Parts: sequence; structure tokens; C-alpha cells
Amino acid sequence: MRIEIINPNTTKQMTAKIDRVARKYKRPETEITSVTASCGPASIENFFDEALGSVGVLEEIKRGQTRGFDGFIIACFGDPGLDAGRELSQAPVVGIGEAAMLLACTIAYRFSILSMPKRSLASLEELVRRHGLESRCASIRLLDVPVNELDANMNKVTRLLLNEARKAIEEDGAEAILLGCAGLGGLDKQLEKELRMPVIDGVVAAVKLIEALHDYGLKTSKFLTYKPPERKRVIGFPNIF
Amino acid sequence: MRIEIINPNTTKQMTAKIDRVARKYKRPETEITSVTASCGPASIENFFDEALGSVGVLEEIKRGQTRGFDGFIIACFGDPGLDAGRELSQAPVVGIGEAAMLLACTIAYRFSILSMPKRSLASLEELVRRHGLESRCASIRLLDVPVNELDANMNKVTRLLLNEARKAIEEDGAEAILLGCAGLGGLDKQLEKELRMPVIDGVVAAVKLIEALHDYGLKTSKFLTYKPPERKRVIGFPNIF
Amino acid sequence: MRIEIINPNTTKQMTAKIDRVARKYKRPETEITSVTASCGPASIENFFDEALGSVGVLEEIKRGQTRGFDGFIIACFGDPGLDAGRELSQAPVVGIGEAAMLLACTIAYRFSILSMPKRSLASLEELVRRHGLESRCASIRLLDVPVNELDANMNKVTRLLLNEARKAIEEDGAEAILLGCAGLGGLDKQLEKELRMPVIDGVVAAVKLIEALHDYGLKTSKFLTYKPPERKRVIGFPNIF
Amino acid sequence: MRIEIINPNTTKQMTAKIDRVARKYKRPETEITSVTASCGPASIENFFDEALGSVGVLEEIKRGQTRGFDGFIIACFGDPGLDAGRELSQAPVVGIGEAAMLLACTIAYRFSILSMPKRSLASLEELVRRHGLESRCASIRLLDVPVNELDANMNKVTRLLLNEARKAIEEDGAEAILLGCAGLGGLDKQLEKELRMPVIDGVVAAVKLIEALHDYGLKTSKFLTYKPPERKRVIGFPNIF
Amino acid sequence: MRIEIINPNTTKQMTAKIDRVARKYKRPETEITSVTASCGPASIENFFDEALGSVGVLEEIKRGQTRGFDGFIIACFGDPGLDAGRELSQAPVVGIGEAAMLLACTIAYRFSILSMPKRSLASLEELVRRHGLESRCASIRLLDVPVNELDANMNKVTRLLLNEARKAIEEDGAEAILLGCAGLGGLDKQLEKELRMPVIDGVVAAVKLIEALHDYGLKTSKFLTYKPPERKRVIGFPNIF
Amino acid sequence: MRIEIINPNTTKQMTAKIDRVARKYKRPETEITSVTASCGPASIENFFDEALGSVGVLEEIKRGQTRGFDGFIIACFGDPGLDAGRELSQAPVVGIGEAAMLLACTIAYRFSILSMPKRSLASLEELVRRHGLESRCASIRLLDVPVNELDANMNKVTRLLLNEARKAIEEDGAEAILLGCAGLGGLDKQLEKELRMPVIDGVVAAVKLIEALHDYGLKTSKFLTYKPPERKRVIGFPNIF
Repeated sequence: MRIEIINPNTTKQMTAKIDRVARKYKRPETEITSVTASCGPASIENFFDEALGSVGVLEEIKRGQTRGFDGFIIACFGDPGLDAGRELSQAPVVGIGEAAMLLACTIAYRFSILSMPKRSLASLEELVRRHGLESRCASIRLLDVPVNELDANMNKVTRLLLNEARKAIEEDGAEAILLGCAGLGGLDKQLEKELRMPVIDGVVAAVKLIEALHDYGLKTSKFLTYKPPERKRVIGFPNIF
Repeated sequence: MRIEIINPNTTKQMTAKIDRVARKYKRPETEITSVTASCGPASIENFFDEALGSVGVLEEIKRGQTRGFDGFIIACFGDPGLDAGRELSQAPVVGIGEAAMLLACTIAYRFSILSMPKRSLASLEELVRRHGLESRCASIRLLDVPVNELDANMNKVTRLLLNEARKAIEEDGAEAILLGCAGLGGLDKQLEKELRMPVIDGVVAAVKLIEALHDYGLKTSKFLTYKPPERKRVIGFPNIF
Repeated sequence: MRIEIINPNTTKQMTAKIDRVARKYKRPETEITSVTASCGPASIENFFDEALGSVGVLEEIKRGQTRGFDGFIIACFGDPGLDAGRELSQAPVVGIGEAAMLLACTIAYRFSILSMPKRSLASLEELVRRHGLESRCASIRLLDVPVNELDANMNKVTRLLLNEARKAIEEDGAEAILLGCAGLGGLDKQLEKELRMPVIDGVVAAVKLIEALHDYGLKTSKFLTYKPPERKRVIGFPNIF
Repeated sequence: MRIEIINPNTTKQMTAKIDRVARKYKRPETEITSVTASCGPASIENFFDEALGSVGVLEEIKRGQTRGFDGFIIACFGDPGLDAGRELSQAPVVGIGEAAMLLACTIAYRFSILSMPKRSLASLEELVRRHGLESRCASIRLLDVPVNELDANMNKVTRLLLNEARKAIEEDGAEAILLGCAGLGGLDKQLEKELRMPVIDGVVAAVKLIEALHDYGLKTSKFLTYKPPERKRVIGFPNIF
Repeated sequence: MRIEIINPNTTKQMTAKIDRVARKYKRPETEITSVTASCGPASIENFFDEALGSVGVLEEIKRGQTRGFDGFIIACFGDPGLDAGRELSQAPVVGIGEAAMLLACTIAYRFSILSMPKRSLASLEELVRRHGLESRCASIRLLDVPVNELDANMNKVTRLLLNEARKAIEEDGAEAILLGCAGLGGLDKQLEKELRMPVIDGVVAAVKLIEALHDYGLKTSKFLTYKPPERKRVIGFPNIF
Repeated sequence: MRIEIINPNTTKQMTAKIDRVARKYKRPETEITSVTASCGPASIENFFDEALGSVGVLEEIKRGQTRGFDGFIIACFGDPGLDAGRELSQAPVVGIGEAAMLLACTIAYRFSILSMPKRSLASLEELVRRHGLESRCASIRLLDVPVNELDANMNKVTRLLLNEARKAIEEDGAEAILLGCAGLGGLDKQLEKELRMPVIDGVVAAVKLIEALHDYGLKTSKFLTYKPPERKRVIGFPNIF
């Protein structure tokens, strides 16, 4: 089976990191194609970034329709363009925020999300509510580190994350930790070892869910909400139309 | 004071209609500038349309920053780009869905939303939930008429709306009716007369709310959620950057 | 247009303060008539005070029906008598708690309410829930200062309020501050300057909402909940009947 | 032990009916004193009636403080004045709506409330929400019969109630029926026989709860919410002060 | 009337304690029969214990059907086997968690639950949600003392409980305290004296509720949820079949 | 990897059916061991059956600890013993109700559950709420066919299910259908073909989720809720201890 992973931001190093994480846990017969959005911001940290990032996601899902992918992954924890993407595709579309939360529900009573920056609280709370999982979310804990400075400060970031994770465990009752940003890719098993608690990278979770859906032959429902968009005149967006 | 009204779709006739509605109820000293999005779909009827429509909204709000508007109105009931727009602007940004619902709360215990098409149910429910007003919403009733065929079928549409409004009153306990689409502009007082119940057009509601905010000197809070987006590299979107 | 503002408590100095606040932001053509309830407690700080205060409010709304007011404002943050008042009047009736919260929703993702005394927590939580805005309310923070001692201690109270507002911002994620008591009237712009965050006085918010409703010709829905009370024998309450 | 039952409306025949119902199920050693509010409307069917009815309730609870009652019952299903009454009294104060719902929770998974008139829907929904029992309430079904015409039409009302109760069972999943108005007193066992389902009169439920609280020595908590009202100047309300 | 109290764990000293507490507040004519589950764990502190404990409860309720009890009490705060037990019995079945919460609602706006161990948080939260009382629960505070070591450390436990109760009052807004474990039986009035706040033992609350239901002739509804289980082949469980 | 599927009821034919369904979609390298509970009812249709069925589930999970399974599936839609089972096992434990709902969330905005009998409504609603997915569940539609008569009436049952599924689509907005009973195993693709909408069998969903968790190395969190049960004396349950 063939999965396209879409990095909704335009930072190629992040795509490379996402690709590495995905390949580490994919099944041998799964083919991964990771792409960087052709337009959009260098990182997604606020509602404005999300709005622009959605366009890149939709371009790729649209283009991917003719290339026979069996599933699409939106590799940003805020799941930008998720519902719109499902309208465009019958092959399943899964967001990494959604995937991390759904898998977490099967191994922990409550999870905490670690992400950045602090301003994204409202956006992440809406994400949790959108998926209906408020009662399963112990807390959202946010660092004030810019996403694009993560790689240059990985040691410091790891230390800060461990610190917040420990607070989530002691103060909020977290039983699993979700890495709330694709830029934290690759830290899962390291943190898991330190914390002795499940730590979930949504990229992996999404790959595994798409494989699962594919094995069972489940595709996006084309009733009501996710019917294909009506054909109509669109101005601009040359990469989509 | 000067208000910019942004029609998030690219249909100029709809902008003209929105403009007429807004002018009818604005205060004499209020200046209205109505613009059509420079890119996007001809109408907004699904999550995909909303994602594209948001871009046009954000272009206009960005451009409007240098032109001294005292407020912006997003003239589509789904409020596309609302949170992102508030990040871009200190002048208040109000969506017509939000505005209609907030005003309705002061004159009715529960309101019903009439809109189209049927597939937009999930999107409208999320709108209501986003604004926290589930307990005030008696029902969402949807017609399966394409938005771009509204004008050509206004008599039939009016009949269908009256029919649904009456069901909302009798079966759902509606006490006010919200016109859930900018394309229904101008029907408010006609329906109000037939139903003898308040009928609210969100465009008017938004104009009145912006005027109210302006009089009181209230501007978008720049703490936490609506801080300006971080400066960063963005690819594409030449009309924004 | 003519608005009657009803102070539900019987302290005339508070009525004077409310009147000053309202006049400061009203439109030139708006006429304000501020009245003190003819019966009831000197301040409203608990459920018992609210019950008595409602009677004064209803007396005034009833009496106001024959005097051609275009709207009524209940100038106590707990909105005593709001639903009952709407039954009595076709002209809109708006509470200052409701008005502050509704306007706040358009400029901030979450607001905090500052009020007093501590015991009123349950009452304020019910107010927020009644209006359906739990997800928009970051916190309710209460001082233990008696309402009737506010004026004598304004400096100290202002300092305490600033302190609580700062905690609301840092600990609760507040993005706007609501003055949760008519007795705090006049502090809005002073606090706004200190906090550099929107601060809302419900009296102003209510005046602006009534003006907005009036411009649009919206009146209280007389379907279902707010139909006029049935005519029936009533004992006592000579000022109402 | 001595219980005072307060009829919040001013219709003495209804007090007599309430008194009969209460005596039928009280324990031999319990003394019942049933009083009619000295002021207020002839029946309570809307928010306005409730506001006036609360005053009569509070007068009686205040007066009852010096007469050594061990508990007070507010004999109107909307529980008018409940929270305010608890502030006035250390002896428990129980409303018949609350009592009926709490007892129902121990013998049925979901209950339906039968009451009148249709306009009271919002008020009853707030009652259920106030007590936190939305998930236990299968439905609220309302007749459009004026409360003060109940006695003259008891046969017809009984037939209508049976009809609604059967719909509640078949369509809403009701497992117990609550008589949502003190004016329906005495119908419980007759309906129970016809429906073969528990039917609860809140007056009886409240008597039994007060007896239970008294046996265990439980009194109204005087922390936070239900502390005695602060002493202050009050104008009017000669029967309270 | 005759009540059977079932201790779902197999520790006879706890049954003796429960019996003493129940007898202290029962009415003279009420007969109490307290039994220890014939199978199950020595204490109930997790979901596994609850599952095993339910079996013992159901055995006793089944056996009790032929012995003419007028009601059954499940004397563990987690109410194990409550819904299943109601299916087996027309005589009311009340859990002590449920009973404590329902009575608390009539004398306090919000209650806090004190229990142990810390791991039972999820289970207790589900209990509160099952009964629909989230908005009435100020907090759940848990000690990490094993249930079976309570008796040996009563002084220390009492001190710890007082400490948590005080935090519940000051930090969480508790207005009544519920003893969240049958093993804390007998501490109610001692804590009440120290805290000057109502403290409720669920065993007493359940006895009083069963007496109240009996007086009124209310029995478990046999519609829908609590219909008797269908007759079918069952393997094992010789004490039930 | 090796998965044990536990049929919580004692009907061997149903175990055989579950086994067939699981094998159809498992990956080649996955080994499935399907077992029938050694004790319990012939089918699980009410809270009582669930309580007994949990014991059989826990016996198998306990026994399975020493046999090196990589995951356990509870093959009854009500997920009996799920939380308790997770306490016993570090290898993941997944219920088929949970699994069906979680996978459905990735391909449909709202799902409907088809199950039986009608009395199980409360139990299924609690299941949905336990997993936090109320906003994703369009409806629960129940047939009054006994589970143990399914096989003998499969044609009729299929017709009834199609009928309810169509109502779920038209009246409730369902976008995917969940088979709410292991006894409906094998109908998924047949119904899917008729309805042209995704139809999910929870047994398959659970197999795929366990495979996904295994690939990623995720195990049950042993913090807080799912820590191993404390060692203590247990009477009875010889198959567990």
C-alpha cells in the first residue's frame, strides 16, 4: 500500500524528519511518500499559519487523487485541512493529532499533550473538542519555544519537555504523553524511557491507522459531510484547479 | 467610522447584495466598503470551500490594516478565517454567523438557523459549538438548494424557508430565526412579517456589533490567542505578503 | 431612542455612577433614564438579594411599558429578573452581565470576570452557564469586599482588582476582563491602560447592544418563553399591579 | 419533627391539596404545617410568576426561623426561591422539583416530567440543568392547560397526562414519571396503576427527604454559597424585615 | 421494613462497622441485615476489585429476592453492581456513593469526596458522571492509604482526612464532605464537629433513602433498563443460579 | 504477534464466528487464539449479563499473562471488563465497541450503532460517553431480537438492520454504521454493499488496532488508573487466583 504524508509547512528539514519517523515503524510492504507543502508558512503556530497551511495540504490531496495513494496523512498536530481533505478523497485522510489521541485512548485513561507555543492553547483545545475527547485529555502543556528553533535547541527542548511531562503526570494525572508537534519527531522512545510511560508520536500513530484502515478496506464515507465538493468556479489556487 | 465587509466567495452579485443589506441599517456616519475576495470559490458550501475562502478573507484583512478600517466583517455564516483574521488585526473582526447568534441571545431564549445545503450540518454544528451556544440553538434546518441558484429561485426558496421556519417553531421551539447564509440577504423583514417572529440577518447584526465595539473603544485583545502571527518565511500567497 | 437603566438595588449613589458610565458612551441621540429600584436591598451579593432585587426590576419594567422606552437595562451583573422582564416587555431587555459577556466574545477568545464577594461564585457560574458561555469564560475571580464599601475603598479595590486580573491573565488564560459589578463602574479604561487588555463594563456594553437592537428593529420574541404572563389574580406587589 | 410546606402561589385550594398529599405519606411523628404565600400570583406558570412567588416563599422561610421548623418545602415544581431560602435557614430547604428528581434517580435510569404550560419549557430545562440531571431526564412533556383550571378539568387532564406519559415511555425512553406541578397532587398512584410505572409527586418526595435529613442530623451548609445574607438596609418587603 | 446491606468486599470487620453505622441512624421499626459478600476481594480499590465485588453483590441481591427484603444497599462508595442489581430486584437498590451524593445536593451547592487510593480517581469520576452530578462535585481528593490498613491507622487517617477536607473547602469550594469509602464509617460526626460543615456517610444516606422510598411505595421501574434479565443458560456462578 | 480474542459469553458458536471474522482481516504473521469464557451467560444483553461476563474476561486475561499474548480483545460491543482487564495486563487490551468507534472517527463525521435489544440503550449510551464520543455518535438504534436467536433468523435480522441503517442515514445523519454486537459478525461487507456506506465490525477494528499498537511498541500505561491491582486476599474465583 502507498501512503502520502503531507507536511503542511514549507520547511523541508521537517519533512525529512517526519519521513524518518514514519519509515521506522511502517510495515515492510507500506510505501511512504513524504512531501513538503508547495506554499505556506515555515511552521504552523497559530490560526493564521493553519489557514495558509491548509491550502498546501489540499493541493497535495487533490494532486494525490490521480496518483493512486491508499491514504493521506496530515503531519501537523493541529490537523489543518482535515475535514476539507476528506471531502476531496475517498482514500482515508488522517491527521497526526487525531491519530495520536485515538491510539492513546486504548492504552491510557487520560493523556496529556505537550506542544508549543503557549498561544496555541485555544487551537489545541478546539482540536481536542473537535474529536470529542475532552474527558480523555488530562492537560495541554505548552512551551514557549518557536517551532523553527526546535532543532537548534533539542537538548534544551528535551529537558523542558521532560519537566512538563513530569508535571503532567504529578499534577494533571497524565497516563500517556502525546508529542504535540511534528517537529518533536524522534523523541518518543527517548522520553518513554525516561518517563517509563507511553509517549506517542502522531506521525507513527497515523501510519499505523492508515495501514489498519487499508487492511480492512475502510474508506472515507461519502455520505453527507464528506461528499465531494460541488463543482463550481474557483478563482486562484492554480495548484488545485 | 469605516467598516470593511469581506465577501469570502468570489461572486460579485452576492457582494452587492451584502452591501445593500449593510447600508440599509448602518448609522449615517458609518462608511461601508464591501469587497469580493480576490480568490476562492463562487460560493461556500463545504469545508473545502471554507478553507479556500479563508485565504481571500485573510488577504483582505491584511491589506485593510494599512487602510485604517475600524472593523472587518466576514460575510459568510460559517465565519471562515475568523480566528486567523483576529490575529492579523487590532480593529475588531466579526463574523456574520457569530453576530447573528450573539444578538439573537438578547431577544429569544432559543434560535434556529436556516441554511443550505444539507451537507453543511457538521460545519454549522461546529460553528455553534465554537461560540459555545449549543444550549441556545433550537435547531439547524437545511435546504438542499445550491447557494449559487438562490437568486434565480428566490420565490421558491422563500417558500421553502417559511416552511422550515414554521417547523422550527412548532417542532423545535425556535423563538427567533437566523438566516444562515449571506445569500439570503434581504429576506429578514419579509420573513419576520410572515412569521411574526424576529428574523436576523447576520450582516446587519455584524455591522451593529462593530459600531457598538467602536463606540466603546473595544479592540481585539492581543494577549495569548490573538497575538499577531510570528514573523516567518511564507511561500506563495503573494496577495498577503 | 430612549433607554431605561434600572439599578436593582436601592443605593442611589450607585444609580448615579451607572448613569455617568452609560452617558459617557451612549450615542448623542440616545436618551438615558436611570432609576433606582423602589424596593430591595442596598446591594446585591447573594441569591436572597437577587430575589428581592428582581421585584424592583419588574416594577420598573412594568411601569416603563406605558412610558415608551425602546429598551431596558438591568444594571446588576447577575442579571436579576432578566427572563421575567422579557416576558413583560416587547422592547428589548438586556442584563449587564449578559451584555459584557456577549461583547467580550467578539474581541477575546476567553474572558475572566472580576467581582465580589466570594460567596457569589455559584451564582456567577450559573449566570455563565445560563448564557451558555462556559467555554468562553477563563475564570471567575472574587474579592471579599462588600459592595457597599467599594466607594470608600476605591484605591484599595483597584489594587486588588489589578492583582486578580494579572493572575487571571497568567494563570487562567484571560484575554479580556469583565467588571462583574455595577459598583465597579468607571474603572474600565483605567484598568485597561494598566493591563493593556480590553476591560468591559457591562453597563456600556448593554447600552451599545440596546442601540444596536433598536437600529435593526429587533424586539423580544413573543413566542413560547417570553410570551406575556397570563392574566391572573396577584396579591401584593402594588407597584406592579 | 416539624415541617413547613410553603405553597408559593396564593391559591388556598392548592395549599389544601398539597397538605392532603403530604399527610398521606408523612411518618406519624412528623408534624406538617402547610401555608399559602401571603403575596404573589394565583399560580406559577412563567418566569414572572416565579419571581413574585419567590418573595412569598422567602417571607415564610424568614418567619419560620423563629418558629422552630426542622425543614421547609417549596411546593412548586420550579423550586422558586430555593437557593435564597437556603441562605435564610439552617434547617433544610427542599424544593419539590428537586426532590422528585433526586428520588427518581434511585429507581429509574431516566425520568420524564409532565407539566404545564408549554411556555415553561425553558424554565424546566434550567431546573433540570441546575440540579445537574440532564443525562437522567428523558423528556419534558407539557400540556397547554392553565394551572388554575386543573381542578375543574381533572378527568380531561388525567386523560391528557396518560397520553403524554405513554408517549414519554414509547418515544423518549421514560422509566418513571414526575408530576411537574403541585396542582397535579393526588394523581400519582392512579397514574402509577394505569401505567405500571413509578409516578412521583414531588411533595411526597420532599417530605420524605426532609425526614431523612432530619434523622441523620444534616443541615444546610453555611459555608460559601448558603451563608446567611449580609445584614444591610432593605426597602420594602415589610413581611420579611 | 427490612433492609439488607451488602458489603461487597469479604472483610467481616468492615461489615460490622457498616452495620453499626446503619443501626445508629435507622428508624426504630427498620430491620437491618448486614451481610459480607461470600466471594471477592478483601477491599475494593480498583476496577478489577469492583468487577469481582459485583458478583458478590449480585449473589446477595438474587438470594435476597426470596427473603422479602424491602430494599438493598450496596455498601461500597463505587456502587459496584448497582445497575445489574436493579435488574434483579423490584425492591429498591441504592448504592452508598449515589445516596451520599443525592442527599448532599439538598444541603450544599457543591460537595467534595474524600477517598482512597489515588488510582481510583478515574473510577470515582465515572461514578459522579454516571449520576450526572459533575456540576455539583467540587473535587475528589484521594489519600494513598490502603483500605485494609484504615483501621490500624485511624488517627493518622483522620488527620489526613481533615487536612484534605480543609483544602477542599479553601481551594475547591466544597460545602459538604462525603466520606468516599465504607471503611471510613463512623467518622462523620467527628469530622463534622471539627470542620463545622456537613459530613455525609453514604451508608446512613442509603438507609434513609430506602426508608423514604419504602414509605412512599416506590419500587425499581421495570421498564426498559431495569427489566429482569432474560432467562438464559449461565455457566458457573453457583451461588446465583 | 499473538492476539487472544475473548468471547465474554459462553456460546461457542459465537466464538467460532468471531474467530472467522478476525482471521479474514488479520495480517499473515498475526496469530489469533479465540476463546470462549469458561463461565457466564449465553449472551450479553443487560447490565447483569455484563457483570457476569466480565469475570470470564478477567479469568482469560489473567491466564493469558503467562502465555505471552501481545494483546487481548474483548469481543462484546459493551466492552465488559475493559478497565479491569487493563489493570491486569501490560499487553494492550481493546474492546470491540471502543475499536469500532475509534476507527469510525477517521472515516466519518458521525456514526450510528445498530444493536440489540432495546433495553440496552442506557448501557450503550454509557459506553459512548465512557469513550467520550457523544458528539461523534449520530444515534443508537436497537432491534428487539434476542442475541441467541440471531443465527436462526439471519435473513430477517439483516433486513431489519438494513431498515434501521437507512433510517439512521436519513433521520439521524449517520455516515458510517457500526455493528453493535459480536453476533452480527460477517455482515459488514454485505451491508456495506447495500448501503454504499462504511460498515464496521468491531472485531476486525480491534485486531487492526492491536496490530497497530504492537508495531509501534505501545503498551498499557501502568501509571495511576491501570496500575496492577494491589495484592490482597480474594475469596472464590478459583480460575483467577
